Amino acid sequence: MDAHYEEAQRFYARQMQLLDSGATDEWAGTFTDDGVFEVGDTVVRGAGDIAEAARKTAAQFAAAGITRRHWIGMLAVRPHPEGLTARSYALVLEIAEGGDVVPRRSTVCADLLVGSADGWRVKHRRITRDGMDPG
Amino acid sequence: MDAHYEEAQRFYARQMQLLDSGATDEWAGTFTDDGVFEVGDTVVRGAGDIAEAARKTAAQFAAAGITRRHWIGMLAVRPHPEGLTARSYALVLEIAEGGDVVPRRSTVCADLLVGSADGWRVKHRRITRDGMDPG
Amino acid sequence: MDAHYEEAQRFYARQMQLLDSGATDEWAGTFTDDGVFEVGDTVVRGAGDIAEAARKTAAQFAAAGITRRHWIGMLAVRPHPEGLTARSYALVLEIAEGGDVVPRRSTVCADLLVGSADGWRVKHRRITRDGMDPG
Repeated sequence: MDAHYEEAQRFYARQMQLLDSGATDEWAGTFTDDGVFEVGDTVVRGAGDIAEAARKTAAQFAAAGITRRHWIGMLAVRPHPEGLTARSYALVLEIAEGGDVVPRRSTVCADLLVGSADGWRVKHRRITRDGMDPG
Repeated sequence: MDAHYEEAQRFYARQMQLLDSGATDEWAGTFTDDGVFEVGDTVVRGAGDIAEAARKTAAQFAAAGITRRHWIGMLAVRPHPEGLTARSYALVLEIAEGGDVVPRRSTVCADLLVGSADGWRVKHRRITRDGMDPG
Repeated sequence: MDAHYEEAQRFYARQMQLLDSGATDEWAGTFTDDGVFEVGDTVVRGAGDIAEAARKTAAQFAAAGITRRHWIGMLAVRPHPEGLTARSYALVLEIAEGGDVVPRRSTVCADLLVGSADGWRVKHRRITRDGMDPG
């Protein structure tokens, strides 16, 4: 058993709840200052730019009345010289007003997590969208 | 690391399996005798009334030949003077005869868990249905 | 708390990632040599035959350009004279080229896990497909 596994589970639960509740600045604070977020061909560098991108996306969904829920599952954690690598499935649900649930996107999330005074942070995240991005 | 996190994970796994298998009395036994279950504007008070409501709902789905599966995810647990607060996502799947899967409802589940001789029980549960209830 | 719960979580995360990435031989290696895989009326006996069946299925999905993601949830683990029994929900997502996500199948996965030099292996798996197989 390894304390890091539970820590990673708790980290993702907190991180996804922050994102989905629109707390985009706190969410971006779970990345390192020099954190990198890659999805498809898009690369966002630095917690500031990551926060801004998240704010824009959150505002669009809020304006459309859509709730998003990010689920992390099948989490695999391994030691890494800088911290931990974590590979998980991430499923994005979208819920419109009225309550209909649409499973919008299935992805693989490959993170490098590094320690900080406040716990784990993401130094590098690469999202691969199933059916869209090369595996 | 904190033993309570794993205990909470196991509690929810057991509780949801009981509900989905139609063991509504055992499921209601995972609430305290004075437990409260809130969803939207509906408030059910006491394990007896919670059991009765669950029995009725289970009977309706059984009559319609629909299997339900409640998934809990993104579980966040915090200490509370009376026990633990647990905030999680809950996704309800409905499966009709033939096997088609419908993600019926996405919710946030906010629980107050208190200890008992048989482990954790729900003293208060508030379900917020995405797209339906105020957040 | 029980080390086996986390071990089981990690086991399933690894096992499902192997299957979904097409590493069918490694996946079959997570069964014992005499492992049994039952789903509906079909019974496959032995890691060799389990690997072959998985290879065929994986090839069909690859040819159709469909990514599969197996999610395990609501995991309940109990001691057993030979190791552990694990009962979980398993949800199968299919993602076609373009990214549309289809929740294809909801199942209950009942495993007997036994220890090995490489960690847990499945000695017996019975999959019950919701809406299709008797519960």
